[in-house]
Amino acid sequence: MSGRMMVVRRSRRSADEAKAEILKAAERRLKDGGPEAVRVQLVARDVGLTDAAVHHHFGSREGLMAALLRHCARDLRATLQSDIAGWRGGVPDLARLADLFADFYERRGYARLALWLSLTGVRDKGGGILNDLVDALHAIRVARFQQAGLRAPERADTQYLTALIHTTALGDALLGDAMTRSAGLSPGTAARVGFRRFAIQVFERLLDAPR
Amino acid sequence: MSGRMMVVRRSRRSADEAKAEILKAAERRLKDGGPEAVRVQLVARDVGLTDAAVHHHFGSREGLMAALLRHCARDLRATLQSDIAGWRGGVPDLARLADLFADFYERRGYARLALWLSLTGVRDKGGGILNDLVDALHAIRVARFQQAGLRAPERADTQYLTALIHTTALGDALLGDAMTRSAGLSPGTAARVGFRRFAIQVFERLLDAPR
Repeated sequence: MSGRMMVVRRSRRSADEAKAEILKAAERRLKDGGPEAVRVQLVARDVGLTDAAVHHHFGSREGLMAALLRHCARDLRATLQSDIAGWRGGVPDLARLADLFADFYERRGYARLALWLSLTGVRDKGGGILNDLVDALHAIRVARFQQAGLRAPERADTQYLTALIHTTALGDALLGDAMTRSAGLSPGTAARVGFRRFAIQVFERLLDAPR
Repeated sequence: MSGRMMVVRRSRRSADEAKAEILKAAERRLKDGGPEAVRVQLVARDVGLTDAAVHHHFGSREGLMAALLRHCARDLRATLQSDIAGWRGGVPDLARLADLFADFYERRGYARLALWLSLTGVRDKGGGILNDLVDALHAIRVARFQQAGLRAPERADTQYLTALIHTTALGDALLGDAMTRSAGLSPGTAARVGFRRFAIQVFERLLDAPR
């Protein structure tokens, strides 16, 4: 590509547009090749920018990776919000929730990205990306406990339950096959599907008031 | 070190002794610096051998890493067996089990090693390292269900439960702080401890017959 073409292409983009395109390219590379495949040089080439331009927008490779994880967190949060809004009659769709986590963490590679950032020492101070899920699950639990004539559970209890659902999804995305094999289950899809179904039943039981 | 000294030192070791020393040095490096710190050259230096000698015993860095994971699996299995033997009166000590997993996976770095191997494409065909745990938990469940006049659960159900305990321990070891923060819990030890206590209570409840 000639220098003139670069100038023309770049001048058409605002800073926000450029950042969005860079993140989109980085997301594709993450999905196809994992964190190691997300390199400033390659991403810059994907979107027709110079390395320097990518560095200008994100500071460093670590900065790009952290921005990518924040981008994912926003996306996950928005998807969750719309999913939760669809829980008719206070019945949460935990199977759909498990699919959502599997899509983000396993298929799109975000579990490995989160781990990569953690190992690189990039500290993410953010928290509460599942706050909407906690709120929705807690409202359901409070209603069910009250209906059973029981004292409502503490919010912290539902926060721990949400963290358990999240931890299970993460571990399953990273090493699910090894986990089912460790318990003597045959390798393959059947064990993975069976495991997810089992976990969902466990979480559904935990939403109910104890009998 | 002179060539003569190398020969003298090496001649004193049998092949098995040398492999055990290499694994011990690799284990130390894994604990202190994670998978990236386990390098053939460094491990060879630690035990006073040449790189070629380490390659001779383990084939490659990947071979050394895979041997290290098998070494850990044997150790975990033996520790589990002795722990399970101490469960008096059919009462499993799930808190001690959680500590055991945290020790192996988080403190000693085996969760990151397992993931490293998986990402490197080294396929571990082994399975069933938690078979003894499955057997012990299943015997307890069968007894409790029968006492409650209920049909005994399928063994597969206990295998899934064991896989859930394992997946939780793995996810917690890798990104426990991020998991509790995602549910809006304050960062730090209190949330981690609270989360582990919650998970143990859930698993204990799952061992019992439904009421």
